[in-house]
Amino acid sequence: MTAEQQLIDAGLRAWKDSVDRIESFFQPLSEEQLEQVVAPGRNRLRYLWGHIASVNDALLPLLGIGSRLHPALDAMFVANADRHSPALLLGSALEQVSGEIHGALWAAFSRWSAQDWLAKHTAVSDEDFRREPHRNRFTVMLNRTTHMAVHYGQAVLARPRTRGVGRG
Amino acid sequence: MTAEQQLIDAGLRAWKDSVDRIESFFQPLSEEQLEQVVAPGRNRLRYLWGHIASVNDALLPLLGIGSRLHPALDAMFVANADRHSPALLLGSALEQVSGEIHGALWAAFSRWSAQDWLAKHTAVSDEDFRREPHRNRFTVMLNRTTHMAVHYGQAVLARPRTRGVGRG
Repeated sequence: MTAEQQLIDAGLRAWKDSVDRIESFFQPLSEEQLEQVVAPGRNRLRYLWGHIASVNDALLPLLGIGSRLHPALDAMFVANADRHSPALLLGSALEQVSGEIHGALWAAFSRWSAQDWLAKHTAVSDEDFRREPHRNRFTVMLNRTTHMAVHYGQAVLARPRTRGVGRG
Repeated sequence: MTAEQQLIDAGLRAWKDSVDRIESFFQPLSEEQLEQVVAPGRNRLRYLWGHIASVNDALLPLLGIGSRLHPALDAMFVANADRHSPALLLGSALEQVSGEIHGALWAAFSRWSAQDWLAKHTAVSDEDFRREPHRNRFTVMLNRTTHMAVHYGQAVLARPRTRGVGRG
């Protein structure tokens, strides 16, 4: 691998690790467990799972891959806060949409060259991109990786503790 | 900038954004606010701040930059869970050690070439590194960036909500 490919590989590993631990965390949960909140008065696990799926679905148009696969998620999990949303989805549906979204993203991510990754995303104009070349796909992908990590950190707070005290 | 430099720049932005939002979140908090837990029975904010500082301090030897600046943090914030630790630090001390650690890391990060970033970290043998070249400094830095994000997501749960419901 060239140095460019190795740097991209490191970013892709961070992305993939984040997606994998999100799916490993949420998939085994029952509908009852998905109703748990991460802290009193905060989001339910069901909402966080859908929120991550929806934010990542929006990467498809933002990175120029294609249209959103599940635009209806936005009203449920992004535009409206938990408990102010229209009907949410069952765990089986969340597992399916999340898998489709992350599969479509990975199909593009895993074949992009350095030039592809450093191309501008679709929400920045040519003019702005000349001034701010960091507004590229690679930066956006890393940003969404930390977004997943933020919510993963919250989700695990709803997990029964196996030790005497929480380690966060 | 070359493609390599742009890819590194994207990674450094993710790191820097994570450090900056950690510091911006914790620095203004009073000693009383630092005693708040992120969820019932979970870590106090004071513990999370020190935990992040300590884990990042350990990057100094791991990435071959130098010795740890504050090895005593480990017993307080990593080896022992919150409330099972020896005396923790006041906010003013945490601000200082965290600033020193992140300053020392940035001094190295901001001058490394692609070759420097793709060099092995110090906890992997030459032999293992030949088989697993992804065990390099860039991968470790991105990994610690998501580590910060995980705990940032938890820390913000202790912040008073400004809207009717929590958005997580």
